[in-house]
This record gives sequence, structure tokens and C-alpha cells, in this order.
Amino acid sequence: MTNKKEITAGIIIIGNEVLSGRTKDINTSTLAKWLNSLGIDVKEVRVIPDIESKIIETVNSLRKQFNYIFTTGGIGPTHDDITAESISKAFNLEYGFHKEAYLILEKYYKPGEFNDGRKKMAKMPTTAKLILNPTSGAPGFYVQNVFCLPGVPSILQSMIGGLKNILIGGDPILNLTVSLRTVESEIAKSITEIQNNNTDVEIGSYPFFKAGKLGVSIVLRSSNKDKLDACNSELIKFIKSKKIEIVKDD
Amino acid sequence: MTNKKEITAGIIIIGNEVLSGRTKDINTSTLAKWLNSLGIDVKEVRVIPDIESKIIETVNSLRKQFNYIFTTGGIGPTHDDITAESISKAFNLEYGFHKEAYLILEKYYKPGEFNDGRKKMAKMPTTAKLILNPTSGAPGFYVQNVFCLPGVPSILQSMIGGLKNILIGGDPILNLTVSLRTVESEIAKSITEIQNNNTDVEIGSYPFFKAGKLGVSIVLRSSNKDKLDACNSELIKFIKSKKIEIVKDD
Repeated sequence: MTNKKEITAGIIIIGNEVLSGRTKDINTSTLAKWLNSLGIDVKEVRVIPDIESKIIETVNSLRKQFNYIFTTGGIGPTHDDITAESISKAFNLEYGFHKEAYLILEKYYKPGEFNDGRKKMAKMPTTAKLILNPTSGAPGFYVQNVFCLPGVPSILQSMIGGLKNILIGGDPILNLTVSLRTVESEIAKSITEIQNNNTDVEIGSYPFFKAGKLGVSIVLRSSNKDKLDACNSELIKFIKSKKIEIVKDD
Repeated sequence: MTNKKEITAGIIIIGNEVLSGRTKDINTSTLAKWLNSLGIDVKEVRVIPDIESKIIETVNSLRKQFNYIFTTGGIGPTHDDITAESISKAFNLEYGFHKEAYLILEKYYKPGEFNDGRKKMAKMPTTAKLILNPTSGAPGFYVQNVFCLPGVPSILQSMIGGLKNILIGGDPILNLTVSLRTVESEIAKSITEIQNNNTDVEIGSYPFFKAGKLGVSIVLRSSNKDKLDACNSELIKFIKSKKIEIVKDD
């Protein structure tokens, strides 16, 4: 890949519920697709438990490696929500009521309903910047290049739109998928050749099994549209020459 | 958690398709539930790209931290399948045709169909032990405490059963879920108290939004059945005292 202006991201999924297998993480997919559209390439995801030392260690390691870090989970009102305090410690910042967040939450709840649990959601690094939450009031926040979002997918989805103008992306990463009625081992050699001829395009090969039939999806990714198109032409030429059936992709 | 005989695992998902958001990882959930049933606790998951140096670095870091490591993906026949060669390098072992794997694959395919792509699937650390594949022939393998499985979920699922007698587990991790028609901030204080009274049980609180209604799932996890039951009794007592509706869990 020769994305000249490569902007990278790491994702940290904080939550025992994913590690126990109870919950399947879908936030990675949401964040990755959205980041790709902004020209930001996700380079690593880590799923870690609700353990303060682990959160601090992981955040401090990844924030130096990538342009942006997104954390999900652990910013709610319960005892296992320790992300905000951990982030404060990772950056050596004061943890306490964030004035703006407190005002937002105080206004969001009816008089008498702004209880201790809800007040906890206004606690974070006091100098953090907020990520507004159009769904359920409680804001996320960011410190330097670390953006902290909630774990509930629908709420996370509603919050990321507001970040669009804050993140500085690179060239958008374009992708094309061609799904074929074949098996990988029949096309492996030719796809390797096409990859070698198109070094600015990342070619992925993914077998699938759908409606009782085997197939392979070939995925082309590049930030250069011309090179992506050229690679796609070569791929289509190969497919036609071998008379491989193209399957309608979902 | 005072699981006296805590056995831990790390999972490494190797694949650009998860990092690009195209594919949602479900192998973590499959592996974690199965490992929990064997008394093995998943402590960390990393999703990394198909880059040799990254695979080597991640495997070598995690295999020292946890009892078992499971990798998924990258053991097929195509150019982007580089797990077997990377594992060979991580352990400084010869990469080449594995005699037993070669024989299995040669027998699996019809005469004339055992092409170069298929032969590649017999290449791995030559001294690795095999993980048999009842679905599609091509075996996985393991070296010391690192178990390499394919990325296709249905194939992975069909292969893990054979590992049951190879892994040495701890006390099985039991769990109980109670889903409530409430919001986290209403119960946060009491759940914190229950957690403080039951330090051998890990209590997780997970908001959900289903069929247009908000709720919270409280998940209790422990390897000690008596302590799990005692914690559950305290939780149920609290729920009844507050007249909170219990929602049938799926």
C-alpha cells in the first residue's frame, strides 16, 4: 500500500461481555467502515477486560502507535464502568465532574432524577472535550487523540457523526468486492499474480458458504481509484478467461 | 476473582477483513464460550492485519502472557494466507511441507486435484501437531501453546471439539444472567453494593434496547457455584424489594 497520506487508527473494546463470548462486538465494524470513509485505516483492535491497569497500559501503548484511538464501553453509571477514570490516569489528568457534561446531564433529566449514578456519567478528565450524545444524553469525550465512546451500538452510531469535522483523514480508502462461485485453491495462483502486478491495491480473498454453496469474495482496497480500477479490470479479465461465475454480492 | 486455578487464553484474529469492517468477527464469541466451558478464561483479543512482522510480534508477546493462544485466519491457500509461515518464524522453526498434513490433503482430493494452492495448505512448521478438520480437510496446527485455526466460522466450529482432550482447563466458569426492565442509573448504587459483598463473583451490567424497550442485563460469573448462587440470591432479593420487572432473556 502506498497511501501517501496514511492516517491510522486503533480500536480498544473495553468489556468483559465480549471476552466472555456473551456479546458479539459489532462496534469494530461500524467504526472501521466509518473511518475508512474518512480515509482512516484501522490497523489494530484490542478487546480487553474492565481492569484499570490493563486499560491504562493498552491506551498508552496504542495512542503512540496510531493517529487516532477509539475506545468503546465502560462510560456508563455502574461499578464496572471504569473507562473515564482509567483514561484520566493514563494521561495523568484530574478525574472529576466535567462542568459542561454535568450541565448537559442536569438539563437532560427531570428534576429529582439526576441521581448519583447519572452524576457519575459527568465524571471524566475535567479538561476533556465532549462528544455529544443525541440519543441518551450522556456525552463521550476525548483527550488528545483518544476518543471514548459508549459500548451500546445504537448510541455509539448516533455519536460518531459529530466527530467528522474533528478528525483529519487521509485519502478515502475505496473498495470493490467481486464474489465468485469457485474455491480459493482454484484461483490462488492467479490472484497472487494479480496482487504482484498491482502493489498499490490490497487484495483479500475470503471464502464463504451461503445458501448451501461455497464461494470466494475477492476484495480490492486502495486509496487510488485509477489503480483500483486497473486491478479490477485485470481481475475481471481473469474471471472471464476461466469462465468463473460471478455471484451477486449482498 | 479468586479462581484458584485460573487458566487463561488470548485470541488473535488475523485478517484485514475484520479491520476493514467488511466482516464482523464471530469466532471470538465461539471460542470464548467454548473455552469458558473448559474453565479457560479469555483475557484479551487482538485483531491484526495480514502482516508477517505484526503476527510474529503479537504471537510472541501474547504466548508468554497467557496459558493458551488461539489464532484464527490466514491458513488457506491464497497469497494473503501467511499465518503458518509467520508462526514458523515466531518459533524459529522450519516452514515446509508437514508430512502428515500432506498425506491427509493428498487423500482428501481426487487424483489430479491436489494442485499447488492446495499443497500450500500442507505447509506449516514441519514439527507442528495437527488439528484435524472434519469439514474441509485442511488441518490446523499447534506449536507449544499456540493453536492455529481457520477464519471461516463453520469450519473453526467443527475443529475445536477435537482439542478438548489436549487443553488443560481450570474450574469451569459458570454464569447467570438476569435481565431487568430498568435503566442502569436506577440500580447502579445497589449493584455496586452487591459486587462489594460478593468479591468472588464478577458482576457485569449491560444495557440493552430490544423491541423498542430499554433494559439492563446483569451477568454474574464465577467458578464457585455456591458463591454464584449466594450472589444471585442477594440480587433477586434486591430486585423483588424494588419491584423491578424481570425480562425473559433470550
